[in-house]
Amino acid sequence: MSKRQLLLLSSSNYHGHEYLQFAKDWITDFLNKNNVKKVLFIPFASTKPNSFDEYTAKVAAPFNQFGFDVEGIHKFPDPVEAVNNAQAIFIGGGNTFLLLKSLYDKRLIDPIRSRVENGMPYIGSSAGTNVSTVSINTTNDMPICLPPTFYALQLIGFNINPHYLDPIEGDKHRGETRAERINEFHHINSTNVLGLREGSALLVDDDKATLIGFTSARLFRQNQEPEEFSPNSDMSFLLS
Amino acid sequence: MSKRQLLLLSSSNYHGHEYLQFAKDWITDFLNKNNVKKVLFIPFASTKPNSFDEYTAKVAAPFNQFGFDVEGIHKFPDPVEAVNNAQAIFIGGGNTFLLLKSLYDKRLIDPIRSRVENGMPYIGSSAGTNVSTVSINTTNDMPICLPPTFYALQLIGFNINPHYLDPIEGDKHRGETRAERINEFHHINSTNVLGLREGSALLVDDDKATLIGFTSARLFRQNQEPEEFSPNSDMSFLLS
Ligand SMILES: [Ca+2]
Ligand SMILES: [Ca+2]
Repeated sequence: MSKRQLLLLSSSNYHGHEYLQFAKDWITDFLNKNNVKKVLFIPFASTKPNSFDEYTAKVAAPFNQFGFDVEGIHKFPDPVEAVNNAQAIFIGGGNTFLLLKSLYDKRLIDPIRSRVENGMPYIGSSAGTNVSTVSINTTNDMPICLPPTFYALQLIGFNINPHYLDPIEGDKHRGETRAERINEFHHINSTNVLGLREGSALLVDDDKATLIGFTSARLFRQNQEPEEFSPNSDMSFLLS
Repeated sequence: MSKRQLLLLSSSNYHGHEYLQFAKDWITDFLNKNNVKKVLFIPFASTKPNSFDEYTAKVAAPFNQFGFDVEGIHKFPDPVEAVNNAQAIFIGGGNTFLLLKSLYDKRLIDPIRSRVENGMPYIGSSAGTNVSTVSINTTNDMPICLPPTFYALQLIGFNINPHYLDPIEGDKHRGETRAERINEFHHINSTNVLGLREGSALLVDDDKATLIGFTSARLFRQNQEPEEFSPNSDMSFLLS
């Protein structure tokens, strides 16, 4: 019986590495473990007009090098059928509002959730990680369009803040810190928020969640002090 | 016949000054010119529970010192009536999503717009400036709650990005720049966006708009290179 399989990357870029190369071993192990040969890529977070082919080619380059085929969902006449037939999906970064709106507009929310609940592997990065969580309330993106709701795929029962950033020491001129923004969210919402720094990811295997990567992560809970977790920490408690 | 009177501040804080003190002359001149003695303050952008009294007191301190009375709208049994009877209103900063949602929930959008169209002076800062524009699509805030629409008061026919920030020279680790975010907006929307740096404001007197303050502003138009405007520039062309 297959179970929930998620690889949720904070970002596709990590300083000093080519696009997605820092995640090579994670992606390779994750897809091989699940016997995946071909990945359905969802480029809907891209805001640039007519950019889906270009974005898919950008993603296909490293995936092909890792040994996997990639097809863009926009090439299929019926995107729901494409999801229903996919071996695995990868949703890439861009604008989270546009991505979530597109998933609702194309009626892909339920099909993706249903496939993932039944074991189809899901890789997300940045906006693709945001939409895998409870809601996009903790995205960093500019709200360039209005989705019907901020509730998202809910593949996990908490939120993630990707590209989590620490305040710059002594800086008084860069506006609110990320922690202050997440604190505003917790003034009116009790959902846990995992701040995933670039270069890190959350690997979910059924009911086990593990922090992987090059940096620690910061967990924000309502009315509690934030807590740091080092790479390889067991984060399964967040799933229950 | 009274006409549109707006003072739209990028921020309430400016480095090296106490709260709202950098804007003392602008606020004083603006209110005196319009014969205002008392200002209705709208604290709904505050995310902190039970903070409206505290926030109103924080605003009243400098306003009192400048010679003006301040009342918080939350003290009135009927907020619509409070707007209808106000000499002027000030909407302060906080979270733009929560502010806009509150304005819709309390059915204040039409009463405020109607009073401003008939000459009631309006001061906005940060989130209060965001909601005075066409839409909140270019706010910097985290989307902690969902308003019924992103369309806002539309007191002017363009958008403002308050707290506009220039990229840090050579920085590769701080995520998307503000200009990149506004560019994403312009991939799917043609509304002009004025990037107002902290310490600056837009003063609107009927059909005349003037950039005031300590810093230049950056105007973003769809499919055009951004353009810098120095303090005291006539920005009236944006109104037509
Ligand atoms: Ca983004
Ligand atoms: Ca804010």
